Amino acid sequence: MLALGIDPGTAICGYGLVEHRGSTLRAVEYGAVQTSPRLSNSERLVIIHRDIDLLIKKYQPDIVGVEQLFFNKNVRTAMTVGQARGVILLAAAQNEIELAEFTPLQVKQSVVGYGKAEKEQVIYMTQRLLNLPAKPHPDDVADALAIAICTTHCVNKAVWGSGR
Amino acid sequence: MLALGIDPGTAICGYGLVEHRGSTLRAVEYGAVQTSPRLSNSERLVIIHRDIDLLIKKYQPDIVGVEQLFFNKNVRTAMTVGQARGVILLAAAQNEIELAEFTPLQVKQSVVGYGKAEKEQVIYMTQRLLNLPAKPHPDDVADALAIAICTTHCVNKAVWGSGR
Repeated sequence: MLALGIDPGTAICGYGLVEHRGSTLRAVEYGAVQTSPRLSNSERLVIIHRDIDLLIKKYQPDIVGVEQLFFNKNVRTAMTVGQARGVILLAAAQNEIELAEFTPLQVKQSVVGYGKAEKEQVIYMTQRLLNLPAKPHPDDVADALAIAICTTHCVNKAVWGSGR
Repeated sequence: MLALGIDPGTAICGYGLVEHRGSTLRAVEYGAVQTSPRLSNSERLVIIHRDIDLLIKKYQPDIVGVEQLFFNKNVRTAMTVGQARGVILLAAAQNEIELAEFTPLQVKQSVVGYGKAEKEQVIYMTQRLLNLPAKPHPDDVADALAIAICTTHCVNKAVWGSGR
């Protein structure tokens, strides 16, 4: 199964496609949609929507994973992240791809085995689990890959039973 | 000139089309896109994007007006309003319609002549200025019409000079 993890943002929107076959995890593609601050908010949203839509159409993931609404940010950040998140959810739904949402705790639990892991531990384990030649950069890309790993784990669990 | 004012929300997204010709304001169309809480967030965003897109294509407004990011709400509200706002900004930009953003203070100033006006005053004056047979309902529709009025005023000012 192929999961697309996304870490939404207006300036940098990280994405990672992770394939889970048997017991093997593989990073199929990863990177970030980056938009210039010289563009208007609307123009940036058009680029994010278009690029995520193209990514979905190209790789046809079985599922898209994003983190749930988070509450440890300020209102301005929440609003701008919300705008980017909105066009990403839209792209997934327009392509009829299933969406899964996870708390940051679930993502950390899934990748590091410990829900209160530090950011650096998550990045380190993401690189190890996917056998990447280098640390994914910027951090938003590592976050997106971690979300994709969590998505494959949780969906497999749901399908095969929680004992696995 | 024709302005489309929008008051974004996931459950209720108010809209109002106001035409400004000479010194006359006219409400061309107004209402709300309402989505069921039984739908997923993504499904609701698809409906909002589709309906606002249809509205723009049908009436071809010269400009779309929305309120600027606001900071008097909690983070959860900001995130969900942000998602709806994101797909609305996207629909405007995809149709290449100019976007204008106003503070709540500008909207009140424009409709009531007083930036700290109460909500009821704004609704009352919106109904009067547009000569509506009844109070627009729900409030989100009145808010959207008020934003549209503000949009026509501010754009006319910008074109004709601030003395007008």
